[in-house]
Amino acid sequence: MPLENAIKNPHELLSNLNELHPSDIAFSLKKIEQESTDDFYYVLKEIPDEILGQVILELPDNLREDVYEFLSSQRLCDVVDELDSDDATDIIQEIEEIDNQKAKEIFDGLEEDDKHEINWLKRYHEDEAGSYMQTELFSANIQEKIQDSITRLKKAKESHELENIHQVYIVNDDKKLIASILLEDLILFDFEKTYEEIIDLHDENRFKPFIVHDKDHIDEVAKQVEKYDLNVIPVVGYNEILVGRITNDDILDVIEENATEQMYQLAGVNDDFEHEDNLLNTAKKRAFWLFLNLGTAILASLVIGLFDETIESYVALAILMPIVASMGGNAGTQTLAVMVRQLALGDIDFDNSKDAIKKEIFISLANGFIFALIVGFVAYIWFNTALLGIVIAMSMVINLFSAGFFGASIPLFLKKMDIDPAIGSTVLLTTVTDIVGFFSFLMLAKMILL
Amino acid sequence: MPLENAIKNPHELLSNLNELHPSDIAFSLKKIEQESTDDFYYVLKEIPDEILGQVILELPDNLREDVYEFLSSQRLCDVVDELDSDDATDIIQEIEEIDNQKAKEIFDGLEEDDKHEINWLKRYHEDEAGSYMQTELFSANIQEKIQDSITRLKKAKESHELENIHQVYIVNDDKKLIASILLEDLILFDFEKTYEEIIDLHDENRFKPFIVHDKDHIDEVAKQVEKYDLNVIPVVGYNEILVGRITNDDILDVIEENATEQMYQLAGVNDDFEHEDNLLNTAKKRAFWLFLNLGTAILASLVIGLFDETIESYVALAILMPIVASMGGNAGTQTLAVMVRQLALGDIDFDNSKDAIKKEIFISLANGFIFALIVGFVAYIWFNTALLGIVIAMSMVINLFSAGFFGASIPLFLKKMDIDPAIGSTVLLTTVTDIVGFFSFLMLAKMILL
Repeated sequence: MPLENAIKNPHELLSNLNELHPSDIAFSLKKIEQESTDDFYYVLKEIPDEILGQVILELPDNLREDVYEFLSSQRLCDVVDELDSDDATDIIQEIEEIDNQKAKEIFDGLEEDDKHEINWLKRYHEDEAGSYMQTELFSANIQEKIQDSITRLKKAKESHELENIHQVYIVNDDKKLIASILLEDLILFDFEKTYEEIIDLHDENRFKPFIVHDKDHIDEVAKQVEKYDLNVIPVVGYNEILVGRITNDDILDVIEENATEQMYQLAGVNDDFEHEDNLLNTAKKRAFWLFLNLGTAILASLVIGLFDETIESYVALAILMPIVASMGGNAGTQTLAVMVRQLALGDIDFDNSKDAIKKEIFISLANGFIFALIVGFVAYIWFNTALLGIVIAMSMVINLFSAGFFGASIPLFLKKMDIDPAIGSTVLLTTVTDIVGFFSFLMLAKMILL
Repeated sequence: MPLENAIKNPHELLSNLNELHPSDIAFSLKKIEQESTDDFYYVLKEIPDEILGQVILELPDNLREDVYEFLSSQRLCDVVDELDSDDATDIIQEIEEIDNQKAKEIFDGLEEDDKHEINWLKRYHEDEAGSYMQTELFSANIQEKIQDSITRLKKAKESHELENIHQVYIVNDDKKLIASILLEDLILFDFEKTYEEIIDLHDENRFKPFIVHDKDHIDEVAKQVEKYDLNVIPVVGYNEILVGRITNDDILDVIEENATEQMYQLAGVNDDFEHEDNLLNTAKKRAFWLFLNLGTAILASLVIGLFDETIESYVALAILMPIVASMGGNAGTQTLAVMVRQLALGDIDFDNSKDAIKKEIFISLANGFIFALIVGFVAYIWFNTALLGIVIAMSMVINLFSAGFFGASIPLFLKKMDIDPAIGSTVLLTTVTDIVGFFSFLMLAKMILL
C-alpha cells in the first residue's frame, strides 16, 4: 500500500516493513536520518537483507554513500546477493568509487555466476543499453514444451530469481532471439505443445520482437519504448544473441533524467554536480557557465563603450537601453526553449527545420511590431521626444527579429555540428541579443537623435 | 519491426501496413503529406478501420484535424468503434471541437455500450485520472474458477476487445477491487481452483493492489507509478468499485508533457498554444509573458533613471551596469532551474527547504566573491580607476547573493501559495536581480565615486 506520510518512529517503521514498498521505507529512512543519525543506522541494521538492497537504491546519493561506509563488507555482500544483476552492478560500481578495497571484498564474496555477470555488465558504457539491462529474464528454447518452461518459471519465482515477467523470449539453439510471446497470449495456449508448434500456427509477424542492441544509446532505446508503447524490451548482443532486457521503470528514469538535464543545461547548470556533498564543487561547475556569461556581458559592455559620447550627451539612452536587450533576451529564450524541446522530442528535425525557423521569425516579428509600438510610445511620453520613441521602436523590431531567427537557428546549428542543442545555446543566444540590442539602439540613436 | 526511415511511397506504405506499427505508419504519412496531400488522403482511404484509429492518434494535431474533416462520419464511426474506450473518447472530443454535428453523427452510430462508456469518460476533467483510464480490463469475481476467467480472456482477445493485459483484477460481488494478480503468478496456479482459494493460501499483502481514485490528479498517479515502478495501475471510483486502469505508456506521456510544460513555463511559453495552426495565437500567448517582462524592464529603467546625473558625470557606469544585472540574472536562473525541478521531482519539499536555501546562498556567495574579484579587476584595468573596481565588486557580491536567495525562495513561496513554481518565477526573479543589480551598482557608485 502506498504511504501518505513518512514513518518517523524507527520501531514503528521496522514493525511495518512487510507492508511497505522499498521506496516508502527509503522515504521514511530519509526523514529519520534528518532527525537522528543513530536511529538511521539502527534501522539499517535491522532491515532484512532481502529488501535492504532495494531500499538503498531508493536513497539519495549522499545517504547511499553513508550506508556503504557504515555496513560491513560481509553485510553488503549479502545485500548485493539478493539484487538483480543490473542493480547489483550499480551498487558495486558506486562502492568502487568510494572504497575500492571494500568493493573488491564484496565482489569476492559473491557466487561465481554473479561475479561473471557483474564483470560483464560493468564493461558497458553508462550510456549504452547494456548498462541498463538486467540479465534475469524468462526465456525458452523453441523446441521446449510450454509446460516445461512454466515449471522452470515457477521454480525461479519461488527462489526469487525472477520477477516482473511479462513475456517469454523464445531462442533457438544458438541463443538467438527469434520470438517474444506475451504472458497474456501464453496463458491461452495448450501447455502440452512446444513453442515451435505455437509459432508455426500464427503469421510470421505475430510474435516478432522489438529488439535493441546492447551497444545502442539508451536515449534511442527510450525513444523506441515511447514510440511503440513497450513495457519491456529485450536486448541482443553479437549475432542477435539474447543477453538481457530493459524494463519500463528504467526507461521512465531515463526520460525524467534527460528532461532534468535539458532544463539544467538551458539554465547553465550541470546535473552531475548538483548532488555533491561538497558544495564548492557545485559552485565551481556553475561558475564555468557564469564565466562564459561574463564574456558575453563584457562584449555587450564593449559595444556600449563604442557609444560613450552618445550616451554622455543623451543620458536617456543609458536609462532605456536595458529594455531592448532584455526584451530580445526573453523573446529569444522563448524560441530557444521551444526549439530545444521539440528537437529532443523529435517534433522538429532537419526535414521540417525551415518551417520551424519561418514560424519563429513570424512570431518574433509579430511581437516585435507590437512591442515596438508600446515601448516607442512609453519612451516618447517619458522623455517627451518623438525621435527617441522611433529609435527604440526600430531597435525593438530589429532585436526581436534577430532573437527569433537566432533562437531558432542556434539549436539547429549545434545539432548539425553534433553538439547537444541545449548545451551552450543560451549563452550564444544572449550574446547575439545583447550585442544586437545595444548596438542597434545606440547606433540608431547616434544617427537619428544627434 | 521498428522503421528506420519513413516510407514516402504511398503504394509501398500500403503494401507494408501489416508489418508496421501505427506509430511508423503515422510517421510515414506525415512525410507523405509534406510532399502531396492527394497521396496523403489516398493512403488514409486505404488503411483498414482496425488500425486507422491508432494511426490517427499518432498524427500531429493539425493533421488529425485534416483527417477529421476529410473522412465521412460513417467511416469515422467505424474507426472509433475499433478503439479502446479512452482513445475513442479522445477522438470524439477532438471532433466535437471542430464540428459538433459530425461528432454527434459519429456518436449516434456507435453501439449502446460504447456510447455509455464514452459519455461516462467524458465527464472527467482532463487532469483527472479518470480521463486517462481505459475501461477495458481483465477482471474476475473472487468466486470464479481461474480456468473460466481464462476462457473469457481468450474470447475477449480473439475479438480484439482486450490487449496489453498484465494482471487479473479480483472483485467481490459489489465490484469492489480486492486483489490484483499478475499473469506471471496466475500462470503458475492450478487453473481448477477459484481465486478465493488462491488468495487465502497467501499472506494478506501478497496481492494487495496499488490503486488510484478516478478523481485523483493525473500528476499524483504519475508519481505513484514512478515511485513504485508500476506497469499498470487500477482505477477505482465510488465505494472502491473498479472502474478502469491506466497503462504505463499514458504515464510516460504525462511525464514527458509535464517536463515540456515546466521547461516552457520557465522560458515564458505556454505549451497549449504552441501547436496552433494560427501563428498569431501563438504569438499572442508569448506576448503575454513578454509584456510582463517589459514591466520588469521598465522598472529597471526607472531605477537607472534615479541616477541619471551620476551616469552623466561618469559614463563608465552606463557601460558596466549591464554586467552586474546580467550576472545576477544568470546566477538566479541557475538556482531557479534547480529549485523548480527538484520541487517537481520531490527531492526538495518544505521539510528540507531551509537546507536548499542555505545551499543556494552558499553557492551564490562563493561565486559572488570569485566574480567580484574578476569583474573588479577588469573594471579597474579598463577604466584605470581602482574605486570603480571596488564598486562593481561590492555590487556583484550583493547581486549574486540576492540571486541565490530569491532564486531559491521565489519557487518555494509560489508553492506555499499553491501556485506552480515554474509559472512566473522567471519574471519575478529577473525583476529582483535587475533592480538589485542596477540599484546597488549605481548607488554605491554615487556614494563612493562622486
